Amino acid sequence: MERYERGLKILDRIHRDSYEKLKKELESIAPDFARIIAEFPYGEIYSRGVLDFKTRELITIAALTTLGCATPQLKSHIHGAVNAGCTKEEIIETIIQMSVYAGFPAAINALIAAREVLE
Amino acid sequence: MERYERGLKILDRIHRDSYEKLKKELESIAPDFARIIAEFPYGEIYSRGVLDFKTRELITIAALTTLGCATPQLKSHIHGAVNAGCTKEEIIETIIQMSVYAGFPAAINALIAAREVLE
Amino acid sequence: MERYERGLKILDRIHRDSYEKLKKELESIAPDFARIIAEFPYGEIYSRGVLDFKTRELITIAALTTLGCATPQLKSHIHGAVNAGCTKEEIIETIIQMSVYAGFPAAINALIAAREVLE
Amino acid sequence: MERYERGLKILDRIHRDSYEKLKKELESIAPDFARIIAEFPYGEIYSRGVLDFKTRELITIAALTTLGCATPQLKSHIHGAVNAGCTKEEIIETIIQMSVYAGFPAAINALIAAREVLE
Amino acid sequence: MERYERGLKILDRIHRDSYEKLKKELESIAPDFARIIAEFPYGEIYSRGVLDFKTRELITIAALTTLGCATPQLKSHIHGAVNAGCTKEEIIETIIQMSVYAGFPAAINALIAAREVLE
Amino acid sequence: MERYERGLKILDRIHRDSYEKLKKELESIAPDFARIIAEFPYGEIYSRGVLDFKTRELITIAALTTLGCATPQLKSHIHGAVNAGCTKEEIIETIIQMSVYAGFPAAINALIAAREVLE
Repeated sequence: MERYERGLKILDRIHRDSYEKLKKELESIAPDFARIIAEFPYGEIYSRGVLDFKTRELITIAALTTLGCATPQLKSHIHGAVNAGCTKEEIIETIIQMSVYAGFPAAINALIAAREVLE
Repeated sequence: MERYERGLKILDRIHRDSYEKLKKELESIAPDFARIIAEFPYGEIYSRGVLDFKTRELITIAALTTLGCATPQLKSHIHGAVNAGCTKEEIIETIIQMSVYAGFPAAINALIAAREVLE
Repeated sequence: MERYERGLKILDRIHRDSYEKLKKELESIAPDFARIIAEFPYGEIYSRGVLDFKTRELITIAALTTLGCATPQLKSHIHGAVNAGCTKEEIIETIIQMSVYAGFPAAINALIAAREVLE
Repeated sequence: MERYERGLKILDRIHRDSYEKLKKELESIAPDFARIIAEFPYGEIYSRGVLDFKTRELITIAALTTLGCATPQLKSHIHGAVNAGCTKEEIIETIIQMSVYAGFPAAINALIAAREVLE
Repeated sequence: MERYERGLKILDRIHRDSYEKLKKELESIAPDFARIIAEFPYGEIYSRGVLDFKTRELITIAALTTLGCATPQLKSHIHGAVNAGCTKEEIIETIIQMSVYAGFPAAINALIAAREVLE
Repeated sequence: MERYERGLKILDRIHRDSYEKLKKELESIAPDFARIIAEFPYGEIYSRGVLDFKTRELITIAALTTLGCATPQLKSHIHGAVNAGCTKEEIIETIIQMSVYAGFPAAINALIAAREVLE
């Protein structure tokens, strides 16, 4: 339970709107999975310290840009990065660097997703 | 030419050994591509400022862990992250967080690669 | 020809609507490929026995969730899984397990696609 | 703690050797992550019921074949599938079907990995 | 600068409309990256000779089909392939062959994208 | 049967050694799949005309470089490309172009694999 509370606290600070939206989307089909999302990624992983939330959001943006197919999560974490204190320039720069590792299409599509969030 | 020099300077600071090794590996088959690697990823992208080298290495480690198949580059950038001033704990923590986005196999294989470099 | 007939019989039982739709979509551009889809995946692979259609649909849902970019095929195979006798719970459970191997974004996006089909 | 115990019980039944090996590999670098592996994939996900362990192992083999880069985990889950009661034929058949969704190279490389385990 | 000019010349011949559109999309968020796209992929890579533009466009279509998530770029390069002198049949055939390497879902989704461009 | 013969004829011309090797590797575990490889990729797809074998091998090399994890198949198709009449330069150039679409690690690893085959 403690893990769940810890996760909710982080979500509340960084991803409040997107978690509420996701919880509603999963309600009728996999309500358990909304709890798991609070518990595992946030209550277990993001709460481990060592890295601050700014860095955690930037490495997540790097991963989601690389995956290529995770546009809804990418947009949500661009919001999260802003909430964690990242500047628009740091977010864009992270995505641009991904052109080297994940290729130009992945970087371009992520930049266009970022534009929708940041404007 | 300037771009190439700029790239070499960064490589020299962060990836000296691995770039020399790579240059030799590509010499007989694609010598041009060794030049391009100095120019584009380093001379063009890593030199853009905005993010410090520590952050650039961590987002690269995130991307390479997510790709799953880029073990030689992952090892080289774990070295690079250390050279840029990242602690062992920050590197491990970045990889652990990837279990959420790229799955457990990607994170486990990257941790085992990291162990080979960091020990 | 026999292979084609065998494929059509399976498609007819499990994917009747989606195959008809796909055939129409490919008609003007690659009509041959509609035939190949009946022959190879269905006439050659799904007809091999050993695994029942329920299991075949669940492993396909696992693969499509992992790919991340195959949403139209995922939806079609969620239909197919229901036609083959899978319960809604088994389908959801298969997708949830993919959070471990393909990451949370892949699992979440597949759950949302599943909701559109199953409701 | 309960979650951890539940995970260990499943690991003990299906993956005893490979979990012990993995725990040792992670000991010096990310000992926490060995605990997390017992807790999340096994204590949280595999223990949810709805699907039996045989089916859980087959969908995992489907996912790992699709990922393409997760050979150590694939081999470990082929062992796990046998421990859960899958026949050699069911495992091979699952991999063969992946040629349709993940392509022939992924299927061929997984078959060769399976041969090393099953012989 | 020379590199940029060289890139623009190729873009002008093969991707005029899509580059103008992309430049506008990136203007407010990463105007530099539009320059980099002219310089690196086109001014540096496509201008190397050895392969003619027809072949360059077909191998790009192969890569984009394999990636699975790069639909906007795939459509743009199908246009580019036509501008470089590829026939509709050669483009379709390239995508069909990807069913072997990247799986049927990737090939089917690329064929449907191709239909939108080629009709 | 005809399809099988057609496939064997192409394999005999372009991939004789690697197909014999693969057939032996699959013999004890999935002998059927060796037949399927002759029939579907070669007897069905490579034999369709429209593209010559040189182009077919180059787009395959593009796909395998992009996949990142298909090194054995990549090496085999680099051999195949040579057998089909591609020059070493055309093969290298195809891989270099993939740095744009699949990222630098994929291109570098494929170049190193190519060196092993071409030298």
